[in-house]
Amino acid sequence: MNEDRYFSPEPAQRQVARALYDEVKALPLICPHGHVDPRLLADPNYQWGTPVDLLIIPDHYVFRMLYSQGIRLEELTIPTRNGVTVDAPDHRRVWQLVCDNWHLFRGTPTSIWLRDELRDIFGIDEKINSANAQSIYDALSGKLASDEFHPRALFERFNIEVLATTDPATSTLEYHRALRESGWHGRIIPTFRPDAVVNIDTPDYDLQIQRLSEVSGIEVKDYQSYIAALEQRRAYFKSLGATATDHAALTAYTKRLSSGEAEAIFQRALKGNVSAEDARCFTGHMLIEMARMSIEDGLVMQLHAGSYRNHNTSLFERFGPDMGADIPTAGEFTANLKPLLDAYGNEKALTLVLFNLDETTYSRELAPLAGHYPALRLGPPWWFFDSLNGMRRFFDNVVETAGIYNTAGFNDDTRAYPSIPARHNVWRRASADWLADHVVRGIIDEEDAHEMIVDLAYRLAKQTYKLGGL
Amino acid sequence: MNEDRYFSPEPAQRQVARALYDEVKALPLICPHGHVDPRLLADPNYQWGTPVDLLIIPDHYVFRMLYSQGIRLEELTIPTRNGVTVDAPDHRRVWQLVCDNWHLFRGTPTSIWLRDELRDIFGIDEKINSANAQSIYDALSGKLASDEFHPRALFERFNIEVLATTDPATSTLEYHRALRESGWHGRIIPTFRPDAVVNIDTPDYDLQIQRLSEVSGIEVKDYQSYIAALEQRRAYFKSLGATATDHAALTAYTKRLSSGEAEAIFQRALKGNVSAEDARCFTGHMLIEMARMSIEDGLVMQLHAGSYRNHNTSLFERFGPDMGADIPTAGEFTANLKPLLDAYGNEKALTLVLFNLDETTYSRELAPLAGHYPALRLGPPWWFFDSLNGMRRFFDNVVETAGIYNTAGFNDDTRAYPSIPARHNVWRRASADWLADHVVRGIIDEEDAHEMIVDLAYRLAKQTYKLGGL
Amino acid sequence: MNEDRYFSPEPAQRQVARALYDEVKALPLICPHGHVDPRLLADPNYQWGTPVDLLIIPDHYVFRMLYSQGIRLEELTIPTRNGVTVDAPDHRRVWQLVCDNWHLFRGTPTSIWLRDELRDIFGIDEKINSANAQSIYDALSGKLASDEFHPRALFERFNIEVLATTDPATSTLEYHRALRESGWHGRIIPTFRPDAVVNIDTPDYDLQIQRLSEVSGIEVKDYQSYIAALEQRRAYFKSLGATATDHAALTAYTKRLSSGEAEAIFQRALKGNVSAEDARCFTGHMLIEMARMSIEDGLVMQLHAGSYRNHNTSLFERFGPDMGADIPTAGEFTANLKPLLDAYGNEKALTLVLFNLDETTYSRELAPLAGHYPALRLGPPWWFFDSLNGMRRFFDNVVETAGIYNTAGFNDDTRAYPSIPARHNVWRRASADWLADHVVRGIIDEEDAHEMIVDLAYRLAKQTYKLGGL
Repeated sequence: MNEDRYFSPEPAQRQVARALYDEVKALPLICPHGHVDPRLLADPNYQWGTPVDLLIIPDHYVFRMLYSQGIRLEELTIPTRNGVTVDAPDHRRVWQLVCDNWHLFRGTPTSIWLRDELRDIFGIDEKINSANAQSIYDALSGKLASDEFHPRALFERFNIEVLATTDPATSTLEYHRALRESGWHGRIIPTFRPDAVVNIDTPDYDLQIQRLSEVSGIEVKDYQSYIAALEQRRAYFKSLGATATDHAALTAYTKRLSSGEAEAIFQRALKGNVSAEDARCFTGHMLIEMARMSIEDGLVMQLHAGSYRNHNTSLFERFGPDMGADIPTAGEFTANLKPLLDAYGNEKALTLVLFNLDETTYSRELAPLAGHYPALRLGPPWWFFDSLNGMRRFFDNVVETAGIYNTAGFNDDTRAYPSIPARHNVWRRASADWLADHVVRGIIDEEDAHEMIVDLAYRLAKQTYKLGGL
Repeated sequence: MNEDRYFSPEPAQRQVARALYDEVKALPLICPHGHVDPRLLADPNYQWGTPVDLLIIPDHYVFRMLYSQGIRLEELTIPTRNGVTVDAPDHRRVWQLVCDNWHLFRGTPTSIWLRDELRDIFGIDEKINSANAQSIYDALSGKLASDEFHPRALFERFNIEVLATTDPATSTLEYHRALRESGWHGRIIPTFRPDAVVNIDTPDYDLQIQRLSEVSGIEVKDYQSYIAALEQRRAYFKSLGATATDHAALTAYTKRLSSGEAEAIFQRALKGNVSAEDARCFTGHMLIEMARMSIEDGLVMQLHAGSYRNHNTSLFERFGPDMGADIPTAGEFTANLKPLLDAYGNEKALTLVLFNLDETTYSRELAPLAGHYPALRLGPPWWFFDSLNGMRRFFDNVVETAGIYNTAGFNDDTRAYPSIPARHNVWRRASADWLADHVVRGIIDEEDAHEMIVDLAYRLAKQTYKLGGL
Repeated sequence: MNEDRYFSPEPAQRQVARALYDEVKALPLICPHGHVDPRLLADPNYQWGTPVDLLIIPDHYVFRMLYSQGIRLEELTIPTRNGVTVDAPDHRRVWQLVCDNWHLFRGTPTSIWLRDELRDIFGIDEKINSANAQSIYDALSGKLASDEFHPRALFERFNIEVLATTDPATSTLEYHRALRESGWHGRIIPTFRPDAVVNIDTPDYDLQIQRLSEVSGIEVKDYQSYIAALEQRRAYFKSLGATATDHAALTAYTKRLSSGEAEAIFQRALKGNVSAEDARCFTGHMLIEMARMSIEDGLVMQLHAGSYRNHNTSLFERFGPDMGADIPTAGEFTANLKPLLDAYGNEKALTLVLFNLDETTYSRELAPLAGHYPALRLGPPWWFFDSLNGMRRFFDNVVETAGIYNTAGFNDDTRAYPSIPARHNVWRRASADWLADHVVRGIIDEEDAHEMIVDLAYRLAKQTYKLGGL
């Protein structure tokens, strides 16, 4: 284990980086955006499955790489959309297959995260290979069965201060309610994600609206009642601790519809009779509406733009979404966000955190926008860019124009619960090394760097997401 | 003060960088493009206002960042477009507010420039903070009132060899005439910027044309007289020392219109009856016409493309242009410039210097174009990219394909007069460090590097802009 | 000569880089894609011309830079498209002109390649300048006349294991046949490049089809016979050792036509009556068809997308193609490739190697695509990006998402035969330095790095292009 890992080899810079990292390595983890299943923590008797259930099957970073080299998802016992695993689910064999191909991950964040997880969480300091695959499997299995690996025990060991999940607008948040009622002290909060009730061109849209009516107690029969139902859900989420909403879209396109236009489109949507252009306009309009609601109820608004979901048609038909086949597209914010910013960009009461998958927008559009509009913050590098190079490019392209105080700090955005500490560790080390470079070049002084590392590692996320008490 | 600031910490590289920088640090400054008000230098009795008048109110880099964090322009006593400053203009309070928030600029060029200005020009070596804000204000005020801080005294202390201003085509250049007549030796030259008489869709276009008629003495009543009036203005600018023109456009779109088409659009423009497409075509056509005129009169042509001006509508309505709300857009040159290049790209008599705000075009389009067409040169990194990382990306993306001899050296492009030395200093240090990296990696030898640093710091700008005597 | 050239100056990294490079510096060269004329090697009595014939006239990297600085192609005795060299071809004078302007190439790959060629192949260790131009010319001339500089002798000295040429679909491959029959052991293989018979909007398309009928022995009179003729040619190329095809297109646009649509367009093409949209659709369709054929016959498919060919109209009219006036354009793969990937992206039997000239697609589209689809591999940085910075950006943007095992290793893609070793040397050094950075930062360990350097320098190219025996 290399205590100076990810730092520059240059001795002067490395020394500064180490000092900065030491300052924050033990700070609690702020996890304001991610996809951990709240059930893990709500159930005091939750049992992990096998190491493959934990580390392979839910992790599309892992199986997309294996798939790219010709290993079928069936071989990895990934369930199809009907829940069928075609091959007999022999997880020992799957684990062996993964370990036999572990060289594919050389130089990737996945290899870093798993190495850190095995060592720091499971106490396994061996390098994965074909020969030790089964003994590592045994070691992992043994640990997972023990009480100290229960999700709540890990939550404390990980030193998580707050963990936000991501939940559909129609969720009853039953696990969050159970958590609250359990008396356990861990702070787990929901996040309001209304995509399914906003994307009017999805095949089951009528069912989504029916469900929205049920959970909100408001019969959604027109645009006005639809808005009321959404506001009800936001209030409900807030009552269970939510401080943020989250919105996904192919682009950042926004557009203000008149009430008449919005009503007309929504009526077509209720009848299942919408065009792609209807859907585009309605999503663009609802982003502006959601910004308005955020100003009213104080929920931080997140926008994740740029992913072409389910690009691999036949794979999607067989296995469903989140199979590693979402591909980024070119992004545009300057024109697309203008209607929203014209409406609410100057509002200090709005915090809109932008995420995207086209790094060219960092220096060209996002940093200039965030360095001007009071409402905007930039989310950390997302998804494929949650990596050492991704972070360096983010810092190098964003900070000169927007500073660090128009960024939102870090979030791990993971569904892989045990990888949370490793992901924050990479961010903290990358931040320390980047700051150290600026110190040794005389761009900032050490005093400022010691402030900035705490901001980057802890304070910015907490403050941006209104997680209290700074 | 760190004599090796901005250089790599690696000792071998740092040593080479320092030697290269030492070679050019005392060379005169060539300032072929910028926005300094010629009045400063024309008036031998010019009096600076307060430190806020000097350092905050004219600097959109500064107030855009403060604005992004919720500080209103009114609080900074920025005048509205009607010239009204809403709050009582208490500049001591403004200065305190800026200093209280100076942490926002950590890691930005603004923080570097101001630190250098305070130290090198005003002799203030303290780091700005809330506590010392008022004493720094006092020190600045005292200096600004003294003779040695008159703009002409600073011009000499800055060691400026030549300073170009940027002036509307309809300007009478009265301050430039006054400068010439004053007998003062400083070389201040105008630059011909015809945007206001080329952008036919601006609301006051008729007034612009009326003014053009007046100052040129040519009654502009059709396309032919319009061209004649523009040629007259160029000749007039040239007679007062101009060596260049400057053109701003949202994109680099060019298009050759027939005389009939040009005339028809121009007649509609005179009647105030043009479409957006008319305006786009006419601008695209006039860029080609301006290139033709440049071949004839020898004026270097500059094109600044890619800024979405006045993006924040409500701010624009209240405060007018140049309020830090101009946002870059994606750029395209390969197709857009083709009509112009088909006409004049092979002409050695044309020098067209390209600036843009989309760094992705550097390696993809601009360097390949400039590395082929005799007429093209690449301007230095512009605006948000006038920064250490911006310069490094420029060098790394441009030089392998275009070399340094298809670049135009540096220009500071500033309206912040006292920041000129700091900006050139950053460029010279960044150039030295970049060259040093190439020396220690054995890509170029020290002999070449010592030639190149002088080219980058001094000769290329002088030669590109035909500023004489190399 | 700097044994550590191109490596980081940081001592720890440099030491690792050197060790990695030492491991591969003597490995044979795998050259699976390039444009060397097979005649050089087929003719046992081949005579080089002058140094200018060898090093200047065929190298558009060299003369595009000279042209950009106002040196006419006529001055360089580049032949016009009619084969006329306008000025008297005094190659000594041309060489002097090149050397007088050699400073233009400072910091470019061309300067690195030529320096290496002169030193390592011709034993000339002087830096080119005006004074030594003629003596270097003499030395080069002398060497070129000697037997040890015959292309076959150089082939052995270069330690080339296999060299692929690029050949039109209608080629009879006479030089490849001659090579096979000559008994010489060098492995020279053709590559099937069908662009001229696929691009239906070229003026001489009827002649191309006539030629296709002749060489295939299949009368091409409809879409079906056209496909049959193409399949016949592929089989013929394969019989002479081809393992790959190559396809150039302005974009990566693909589109599945019905047989009826394909037939209708093809019939219009035979009549010379096609629209630009016809051509675009047909090319997009044929890329899918070629993927199908690749699955059937096993030929690796290469796609080079993104070059706006012959951008300089007047130069093209006078001198023809490949005059340094091809300019990159913005690229898009996520949507453009989807029809092809929907059809064959999940096929392990297909290897589609993607090349492009828009580096922004590396991290945004290409790495995410290649890190998922079994059929995809990423070609090395192409053309303007076959450079130290180009390679570094490629690694930094691709590997975190796609790993190195979804890349295709290196190919030199050159028509400048004597530059082959220099180009591979740059790649091997750049790879070693990039890996060394990862080792000293603790991202990968030395054991993995020693595997990866051999993969990057040798194995990946050999395996991707099915060149046998790993």
